[in-house]
Amino acid sequence: MEITKKLSELVYSSYPLKDKRALEMAKLGVIDYLASSFAARDDEGVQKLLKLIEEEGGYQNVPIIGQNKKANFLQSALINGFLGHALDYDDVHSDVRGHPSTVILPALLSLSSCENVSGERFLSAYVIGVEVMARLGQAIGSDHYIKGWHNTATLGTIAASIACGYLKNVSVETFQKVIGFAATQTGGMRAQFGTETKPLHAGFAARNALQALKLAEINFGGTKSALDGDSGFFALYGEDPAPSALLFSRWGEEWKIYSPGLWFKIYPFCSAAHHAADAAVRLSYKNEFRIEDVTNVKISFPKGGDAALVEQNPQTGEQGRFSVEYVVALALHKKALGLENFKNKCIDSSIKTFLPRIERVYREDVEPSPTAVPKGRFTIVEVEANGATFTERVDLPKGAPGNGLTFEELQEKMSSALQDEEKTVKIVDEIQQLERSQTMGKLLDVL
Amino acid sequence: MEITKKLSELVYSSYPLKDKRALEMAKLGVIDYLASSFAARDDEGVQKLLKLIEEEGGYQNVPIIGQNKKANFLQSALINGFLGHALDYDDVHSDVRGHPSTVILPALLSLSSCENVSGERFLSAYVIGVEVMARLGQAIGSDHYIKGWHNTATLGTIAASIACGYLKNVSVETFQKVIGFAATQTGGMRAQFGTETKPLHAGFAARNALQALKLAEINFGGTKSALDGDSGFFALYGEDPAPSALLFSRWGEEWKIYSPGLWFKIYPFCSAAHHAADAAVRLSYKNEFRIEDVTNVKISFPKGGDAALVEQNPQTGEQGRFSVEYVVALALHKKALGLENFKNKCIDSSIKTFLPRIERVYREDVEPSPTAVPKGRFTIVEVEANGATFTERVDLPKGAPGNGLTFEELQEKMSSALQDEEKTVKIVDEIQQLERSQTMGKLLDVL
Repeated sequence: MEITKKLSELVYSSYPLKDKRALEMAKLGVIDYLASSFAARDDEGVQKLLKLIEEEGGYQNVPIIGQNKKANFLQSALINGFLGHALDYDDVHSDVRGHPSTVILPALLSLSSCENVSGERFLSAYVIGVEVMARLGQAIGSDHYIKGWHNTATLGTIAASIACGYLKNVSVETFQKVIGFAATQTGGMRAQFGTETKPLHAGFAARNALQALKLAEINFGGTKSALDGDSGFFALYGEDPAPSALLFSRWGEEWKIYSPGLWFKIYPFCSAAHHAADAAVRLSYKNEFRIEDVTNVKISFPKGGDAALVEQNPQTGEQGRFSVEYVVALALHKKALGLENFKNKCIDSSIKTFLPRIERVYREDVEPSPTAVPKGRFTIVEVEANGATFTERVDLPKGAPGNGLTFEELQEKMSSALQDEEKTVKIVDEIQQLERSQTMGKLLDVL
Repeated sequence: MEITKKLSELVYSSYPLKDKRALEMAKLGVIDYLASSFAARDDEGVQKLLKLIEEEGGYQNVPIIGQNKKANFLQSALINGFLGHALDYDDVHSDVRGHPSTVILPALLSLSSCENVSGERFLSAYVIGVEVMARLGQAIGSDHYIKGWHNTATLGTIAASIACGYLKNVSVETFQKVIGFAATQTGGMRAQFGTETKPLHAGFAARNALQALKLAEINFGGTKSALDGDSGFFALYGEDPAPSALLFSRWGEEWKIYSPGLWFKIYPFCSAAHHAADAAVRLSYKNEFRIEDVTNVKISFPKGGDAALVEQNPQTGEQGRFSVEYVVALALHKKALGLENFKNKCIDSSIKTFLPRIERVYREDVEPSPTAVPKGRFTIVEVEANGATFTERVDLPKGAPGNGLTFEELQEKMSSALQDEEKTVKIVDEIQQLERSQTMGKLLDVL
């Protein structure tokens, strides 16, 4: 089977918005991505990137979210991709093992600023992008991430390029070439986790996806079978060169955007720490011990369940986004798990001195829950104080599919990010009826 | 050992132009790269890329070679990288198993257009870039290419970013970060061989290398150890995660740019076919058979020696750049191995009907010559005609290190590419005394 061609054919003939669950989740996804981006609007990295593109010049026709500035379509995709992911506050998807919307949506927003695109087509393209990214994630398997690739970047570039192709309604052959232009630009190392470059990967992926579409539009020459064969994408970046079953089975029966679905975050840090956060918050609310009396905290994971949590001894709140120790320490100290505590400034000394009391444990004797998200995941937080042990276990944290955020909760996330009720209502209302908008203009105007 | 840090320290404290052999070869390399780029100035792909960047806008301060046009530093790096490699006429390096100059020089030319840079610093940075790219090639090993990576792109991005850092005389710590920014953008699949995207990889690599430097200059956050550890560059893209001996041994005693040295091409096609080309030209010059009488042609390689020659039955001259069958057929028909026969147009029917008579053979019984380039390579062309067999073997083709082009031959390559004697003399003269130029302005002005 020719994988590249088959995928192109399936995408070309898909109309996902016929499924209302896909439509509703897509709109929630747009709200969440924009809220996450607005929340990061004062991030230091954004200011640096704005300086970077100043040296390049360029047309100013695509908004950069929350900056009252425009730039060209590539530059804006780069920065909007960074913005969405800067705080690690944006949605994740367990099949992707990464962040779909912060790659797909910046690319689509850029294209929508340069062309006349309906809200319906925009949302459809988004659903398609998430579908492809999730299926690529399943097809390439867990070794890809474990080896050191950053799925958001590697899978995102291809997925977003396909979303762009869908937005422009390109032919099957063009899809095949777009996939190749994207695949051959694909990079992104987990070695950059814990630095500003991690969220920049999302920007690179969004920009390179757009570049892939543009190359196809000028009829540039490229392979039509980049996903195929012994030196194709899956062979280079994965273990199985032809994982077609996982890519194609039951295509269109359901959509990955709602099944298992996007995970919208209530906390601005890595989702792998959300189970522990919920558990620690519960322990803390129960008020069964005093923090001064805690001698030891044990956090138990299934093997590899903490791979993304690369910081055991963070110095700054920013590094703390990838530290389950920091998150649990904050919660046990009844400190807020909000934006303020995850910025690029030194962490509180009371927290810092507490960190050595926390240890990670890997347990193979624990049975994962069938409803766990991600599949097979659990986190158990055990606190020892005054000789007693207090335990909470979480398999399905708040925000995860099956325990998801409601429309109102996402509106609240937007409101908290924007600190501007009028603008919140304007944006959320526009997204709520986006499938009936003839153009994306009204939404783009308020970014 | 921390590989990223060690490499940065070595580069930082290197002054390669003290070695006159490095200086002379660097100047030849600049001539060859520019000649190869001018030869491609009417290439269709260049016109497409010019259209592509029109949509982006941007400052116009860096020349695009042979186009009487300027663009911003990223755009020009992209197109100048493509131009140098478009005809596969540019230098190769056996340690790289790819093309160093068409990645390194476009990045350096872009930087030199934006800053005040001396000719000496420019040439030094170029020597450093080639050094790093060759050593990365040796360190990552032959499996990297065989698996499906395009070394020009994957190794070139990092090497060119280091050359850029050297040009700007950045600190050791900044070098470490630049390497990380480059490594995490690294891609490039051999699946694109035989398409316009292959040379575009050189452009992407040059552009991304510059992007890496610029990120360091705005003090963006990134890892300082991207080459290290179990999920570092060598672990992800190669087999051995810590190949430090090959990276560092005898650093600075000689320079890779002359030992084994750049290979300047006399033919505008893949260097893996140059041995066969020389052999076929010799057979043809000897005039011992008539082409009509040839029943069979056998081309023998060591196993894997023809991996880059992906076209066995090319339809166009462009595809013929990667077809040893096409090259040998042309030579045996006494047709020129010049630019005209490797363009994007259909190949002659007399050649096309001859191709099925040619077969490839892999021989393990042949002893490679100790002076072969690349190491272990040979090609034997055997022609059967009227019951007799005519044989030529080539281990070291014209242009390869040890059988290299002279200054005069490279001047001739420039002249043939430019078709303008006055301009040829102007450019070649400027390069000949480049190490004494206070700025790069005079050279940039004539591109």
